[in-house]
Formats: sequence, structure tokens, C-alpha cells
Amino acid sequence: MATESRDYGKEAVDRHRETRGKVSIAPKMKVETLDDLSIAYTPGVATVCMTIHADKSESYHLTNRANTVAVVTDGSAVLGLGNIGPEAAMPVMEGKSILFKGLADIDAFPICLDTQDTDIIIQTVRALAPSFGGINLEDIAAPRCFDIEDALQDLGIPVFHDDQHGTAIAVLAAVINALLVTNRRIEDTKFVFAGAGAGGIASTKLLLDHGAKHVILVDSIGIISRDRTDLTAVKSAMLGTTNLDNLSGGIADAMRGADVFIGLAAGDMISPEMVTSMAKDSIVFAMANPIPEIWPDLAKAAGAAVVGTGRSDFPNQVNNSLVFPGVFRGALDCHATKVTTEMKLAAAQALAAMIVEPTAENVLPWSLDPEVARTVAKAVSDAA
Amino acid sequence: MATESRDYGKEAVDRHRETRGKVSIAPKMKVETLDDLSIAYTPGVATVCMTIHADKSESYHLTNRANTVAVVTDGSAVLGLGNIGPEAAMPVMEGKSILFKGLADIDAFPICLDTQDTDIIIQTVRALAPSFGGINLEDIAAPRCFDIEDALQDLGIPVFHDDQHGTAIAVLAAVINALLVTNRRIEDTKFVFAGAGAGGIASTKLLLDHGAKHVILVDSIGIISRDRTDLTAVKSAMLGTTNLDNLSGGIADAMRGADVFIGLAAGDMISPEMVTSMAKDSIVFAMANPIPEIWPDLAKAAGAAVVGTGRSDFPNQVNNSLVFPGVFRGALDCHATKVTTEMKLAAAQALAAMIVEPTAENVLPWSLDPEVARTVAKAVSDAA
Repeated sequence: MATESRDYGKEAVDRHRETRGKVSIAPKMKVETLDDLSIAYTPGVATVCMTIHADKSESYHLTNRANTVAVVTDGSAVLGLGNIGPEAAMPVMEGKSILFKGLADIDAFPICLDTQDTDIIIQTVRALAPSFGGINLEDIAAPRCFDIEDALQDLGIPVFHDDQHGTAIAVLAAVINALLVTNRRIEDTKFVFAGAGAGGIASTKLLLDHGAKHVILVDSIGIISRDRTDLTAVKSAMLGTTNLDNLSGGIADAMRGADVFIGLAAGDMISPEMVTSMAKDSIVFAMANPIPEIWPDLAKAAGAAVVGTGRSDFPNQVNNSLVFPGVFRGALDCHATKVTTEMKLAAAQALAAMIVEPTAENVLPWSLDPEVARTVAKAVSDAA
Repeated sequence: MATESRDYGKEAVDRHRETRGKVSIAPKMKVETLDDLSIAYTPGVATVCMTIHADKSESYHLTNRANTVAVVTDGSAVLGLGNIGPEAAMPVMEGKSILFKGLADIDAFPICLDTQDTDIIIQTVRALAPSFGGINLEDIAAPRCFDIEDALQDLGIPVFHDDQHGTAIAVLAAVINALLVTNRRIEDTKFVFAGAGAGGIASTKLLLDHGAKHVILVDSIGIISRDRTDLTAVKSAMLGTTNLDNLSGGIADAMRGADVFIGLAAGDMISPEMVTSMAKDSIVFAMANPIPEIWPDLAKAAGAAVVGTGRSDFPNQVNNSLVFPGVFRGALDCHATKVTTEMKLAAAQALAAMIVEPTAENVLPWSLDPEVARTVAKAVSDAA
């Protein structure tokens, strides 16, 4: 079984203590002389203010708004760490910020909220909107994340919950190329999702939008079926388009004969026998992080043809960082007011198309490749 | 009469359009390799998160929080421009941000809120608190600004309304040295304030805290006296310590025989005759911006010994930019949970003491002098 080759945790704490975090402010104008002050600040700035007052859209030209995204969390579902609160969530949000900057030149500012009340979060984001060109919701627990994102689609700027749609776009891109490698048509392919949280639900929806017909969702209780009486509204609603044969049982039942397993659940939950029970040349994306649902070597030995994880130290990393920088770059560039399904499908297809000849070991590009964000941005902008 | 020598307004609009605003994000760690990603982001960052989760105070060491201030406005009282809304307020907030960075190396982020509801503003700032080491409230109309600041003093991080206390500290520093120049003792000095908004009320309180006994406040209706039936609660409360002789009438009545006039009101509202009616060697700080209550040359010709304005192109500029960078630098450096009266008095005294031999033309340092913020910061930190 793979283990960590280095203690990245200790190195990270040392490094963060040394730099005191990861995000600072950089001025775009200098203020060193009286003239500087008169242009950047009073009295000259008054004319800048009144120009925007006369036409609000000028805020996209005379301030940094057009390039500014808020990375907003309530700290309730941070990585796989759970509800660790806003202060403890900040290192992840600062991490997103520097990826936004490094990969897409977007000025993302981390905002960790001291509330987990849906209505207050919605109201707070509404209040913040004039300062930002977009809102990246992050690490907010399901089902609250669905309500918050839905309620904010009228805000006039893109509001994108990365744990849903960033994940869904990366998963769909990986699936597109894995189906090519194993010579499958999406409409005939049987998908099983372990995990029916934000990422699982959104990935299922995007797969269906792309043409999938056979998807089964499994949560920690078992297969999501009409027989269950414990389903949330969001999970119940998925029964209109998934599990059309109304299969019930556990994850082992769901995987028997399936073509594709997608794990967004918990480490070490899949046995080799379950993989062996899948269809020939199965596809396994085991994305729990840092411990996958099944380690790649075990999945391959059990018969999987294409295996991917969420980790960066194995082939086929399926990770949001392939997606969010480019999606926001594209949305900001074209002044989109929301991120539509068409834009998400275009992003996934563009990501997949970056790999000219997909192989079992190479279905997705590397997220730090500077071409990734550019390619996704163009696809999103063109589809807007 | 002085006029603008350059069209700073047009230059400012051109410059802002060219740079697209004034504030961007700068990463403090690079993410170019797999190791970088593992330390700044997953998996290493998880240990950083859990370290803060175990001890929230670690957020001051492992994130940029300890150096981060939110510049928060509702856009309701921007400069002298009035209620121009959050989008139009942004150029001023970005201006404050780059002054924070340039003068005190503080990472200030501008937040312009889409609400002017007192309770929602309070709730929003509460929700934002975990992301910031301090809150600079800015350009919020009176009396709402008082309620908001008061309600947030328990937040655990300094909440400082610059239009109140930045102004008050700068005014007190200017007064301290002007009294030296004209050989007055503060307890015998008669002060008249034109303008009983945020700056006028806070300046009056700080003057009283420093030992002033005779202060009269005048608003747009007239002298604030017991005979008035139209006073807000905040103005009424000032009658316990100001206008002890219960003078009534207009600004001309208030100024007759007064030693010091402090204007935080409206341009061109004071006549030379009113200045002439003041005590000999009077002190006139006419800080309405950009048009002062009376132009300096007229005030001097009418008998004033010391004259200052809010403008940078005349001697004795009394401006918040002397104050807010150093106050927050000092408060952040000593982990203060609020900015106390002692800290404000210390800031004013330190500012005044920077001028070793005050003269009529030189009662305050120049705000872009890098020593100013350092001096104020040390005074604030020592007084905490």
C-alpha cells in the first residue's frame, strides 16, 4: 500500500509559520508624491467615484472588481476534515487564492465566515457582491451548499460552488477520456457513485447532461432507491434520473456489473472483490483524499483498466484545480452573470480534448500546466 | 481664491482605467511544482488547518490574518460626495488599501456592502471577522456609524471608524501644536466645531478627554443647545459635556470670542467677519474637502494666527492618512482587541511631538513621511 513519502504536514506548518500565510495585497498604483496622492486618493478619486455612480458598469473598468473573486466558506466541510470552523479553514482558502493567481491571474480573496446559518450566509454574500466579479463557494456542507448556491444565482455575478461543479467538470473530463480508452459509449455505460454529497450529486447531473443514462448513487447508508425513507430532498430528487431499475442494497450490490466506479466518499471503503465484480476493463476513479476508496495498485490487480485518484502522486489526478481557475477566468473575461450547464460541459470537453491520445495512465492534463486554465477559460467564455 | 492647478479628476479617471483599479493579490508562496502544491495546498495544508482547529490563536501565525484589515463601507457618506453607493465607493476604499500597504505594510482589503441597514451591516462584519485582524469602518453616514461601531466593540479584533477617530486624532494633534504656537492652555481654550457628524462628535470627545473644557458644537441648523427639539440621541448626549453656558444661535454667534474654529462641515460657509470676531491670534482648521469652510488666505487676512485645511496643497493638512495606517499597525502588532481612548490620545500626542518646534505654518508632519505611521504605531502599541 502506498504511504506518504514525505511529511508534507510538518513541512506545511513550518512553511506557513515562516511566511505567515499565503496571501497579501499588492498595490497597482504607487503613492509616494503629492501628485500620486491626488490621483489615487483625494481629490482626484472623487471623479472616479462619480463616474461609477453615473454608470455602475464602470466599476468593472475603474476598480479591480472585474478581476476579483471571493473565496467564501463557512468552514463546515473543509477537505476531508469536516466542520473545523472558519479560522481553521483559512489555509485552504488562501491556497485556493494563490492557485487562482498563479494559474489564472485572478485576484481571489479568502473569506471565512463566522456563521453556518444558510440565510445569514446568503445575506452576507449578497452584501459582499458589489466588491467582487465572482463568488467561489467552497467547503460548505451539503445540503446547505445547494440552497446557498441556488439562492444566489440572481446576484448578477457568477456564483460557483467549486465542490459541486469543479468536481463535476473534472470527473466528466476524466470519464470522457476513460470511455475512449476502454471503447465505451456513455449512453450504454453503467456508473456507480460512492458519495452523494455536493460533488457526487453535481457530477451525476453533469454526466446525465452529457448523455449518461445509467447512474446509481450510493451514500453511507446504501443505494439511493425508492425504498429508502431517510433521503434528503436533494437525494430524493435524484431518483427521477438515476437508479431507474430501483436497485437497492449496499455498495457491493451497486458495483456488480458496473462499468465505472466514482468515489467521492471515504478512504479504503472498496474491496478488490468489488472491483473484480465490475464489468471487464472497468474504470475506477477513487477520489477520497488523502486516502482513496481503494489504492490504485489494488484496483488494477482486481481488474480495473483505468484508475485515477484525487492525489497528485498517482496517475490520473482528478482535481478541482484543473477547473476553477479557468472557469472563473472565462466567466470574468466574458462578464458572465452565471456559470451555465453549457459552460460546464464545454469546460469538461475542453479539458478532455487537451489529451490528444488518452491512455490508461493519462486521461487528464496536469493541473499546474499553464495551458489548462487558458484552455478551460476559452471554452467557458465561448460557451457563455 | 485658490483653484485647482491641475485637473486631477480627469487624470485620476484615465489612470484608474489604465490600471483597472488599485488593489491586487500577491501570493506569499509559489506553486510551481508538485512539492509546492503539497505544502501550500493538499495534502500538507490539512495539518495547518488542524493546528489552527486545535488552537484558534494560531490563525495569527499560520495565515495572513494578523496583517489583514477589512476596509468596510456601505457607500453612504463617501468623501464629501454623499450617498453614492457601494460600487462608486470602491475607488476610495482601494485608495485606503494602498495607503495601508504603502505607509504601514498592512494588507487591507476593500469591502463595499450592498446594504445600508444597520443590523445587516453589523451581522455582516461579525460574519467576516475570522478572516481579518481588524476592521476599518469607512464613509458610513451618521448616526448609523455610531451604532455599528459601538455594537462591534466585543468582536475580539479592533473595529475603528476612521471618519470618527482618525479625524479626531489628527485634529487633536493639530490642536496640541497650534495651542503651543499661540501660547494657550487647553483648559482655557474655547473651541467651536462646525459639523456635528461622525468626525465632529468624535473630535469633540477626544478634545474633552485631553482636557478641553469649553466646546460648542454647531450643525447645519445652528448651535447644539438645550433649546433644540430636533437633536438626535447622539447630539443630545453631547450636551452633558459641551455648550455648558447653553449658548444658542448660529455659527456666527458661536464663533464670536472663540479661540479655535474646527470645520468638518461645508465649503465656503465661514465669512472673514466671523474669523475677525474670534479671539486674538485665533486658530482655524477648515477641513471641508475639497472646498474648505474658508480659504486660508482669507482666514489669515481676517486675523487667524494658525490656519489648516484637509487639503494637501496648503500648509497644515489635517488628514486621516496621518492616523489610520499607524493606528492599525500598532493595534495589530500588539494583538489589541480594540482601540481604546488611551491609544487614541497616545497617537495624537505622538503625532504632535513629531514636530519639534511647531510654527504657524507647520503643526503636523506630512502624511507620506514613512516615520509617521511608525511613530503612531509605536505610541498605540505602547499605550495598549
